[in-house]
Amino acid sequence: MVTSDSAAVPALLTTDVDGGTFALRQAVRADLPAILRLLADDQLGAARESADDLAPYEQAFDAIDADPAHLLVVGELGGAVVATFQLSYLPGLSRKGSWRAQIEAVRVSGELRGQGVGALMIQWAIDQARGRGCSLVQLTTDKSRIAAHRFYERLGFVASHEGMKLTL
Amino acid sequence: MVTSDSAAVPALLTTDVDGGTFALRQAVRADLPAILRLLADDQLGAARESADDLAPYEQAFDAIDADPAHLLVVGELGGAVVATFQLSYLPGLSRKGSWRAQIEAVRVSGELRGQGVGALMIQWAIDQARGRGCSLVQLTTDKSRIAAHRFYERLGFVASHEGMKLTL
Repeated sequence: MVTSDSAAVPALLTTDVDGGTFALRQAVRADLPAILRLLADDQLGAARESADDLAPYEQAFDAIDADPAHLLVVGELGGAVVATFQLSYLPGLSRKGSWRAQIEAVRVSGELRGQGVGALMIQWAIDQARGRGCSLVQLTTDKSRIAAHRFYERLGFVASHEGMKLTL
Repeated sequence: MVTSDSAAVPALLTTDVDGGTFALRQAVRADLPAILRLLADDQLGAARESADDLAPYEQAFDAIDADPAHLLVVGELGGAVVATFQLSYLPGLSRKGSWRAQIEAVRVSGELRGQGVGALMIQWAIDQARGRGCSLVQLTTDKSRIAAHRFYERLGFVASHEGMKLTL
């Protein structure tokens, strides 16, 4: 289902934070410009993203939106998109054939960092993974993101693995 | 499509190695006991796997087999399953909406390690990812697997990320 009207999307989580009500909901196509600003507003993302051409992002959005294995989430504060992440459910044989949840592309608007919004999002994702019967939640984070490592460790993640990437 | 007869599965790659002809093919359900032996024949996997009850592995196999985003591969030498890995294609918004390939559950039979079979498999996976237009191949490997880190680095992977896991 390609969702297009954010007003029609039910909230996944609603909670009061400093500055108003923070709500998580599934992203819609109209959120793409706001999500791209979040992806690019980052020391690593700035060099990797380009909002000059939305078409490749729209194709990616449609692929994510069409597959129930993937959920693209945005966080809103006062009606503005201030955070995003992707949650995916992956089958595998390891660990007695257990499903694993994977978190990618986590971003929180610069002015909101350190205020607990990210923790609300990731804790929600962990709860979803548990509810789906996953045995593991996994993510990788660039080794230069020291604050992110501490953030995830506070939420219970262990940096047990090397995250290896090959750019094609 | 649930494939059940390995003889009907075309080879993905065939190459001569010491000891005979090494072939990659998509796994079939009948391969599960051999794959489980590979998963368990490992300092970390031994504690995590149990072949006493195949049912959860069969369910996981069916989930992988039913979804074209995932490919479970076995490597055969002289008709015996001696290696395995899973290749998954994941959509995402990051890096201009590019697809990424993810490799999981890589195992090579103990007596064949160091003979190039693993490199053949991973290089094949990299080629597949490139052919599908992925911008990135990613995997995580336990920090205790020092030989594996060197193996992936020789194939071009960079240990740029922390691989963080939360066991549920």
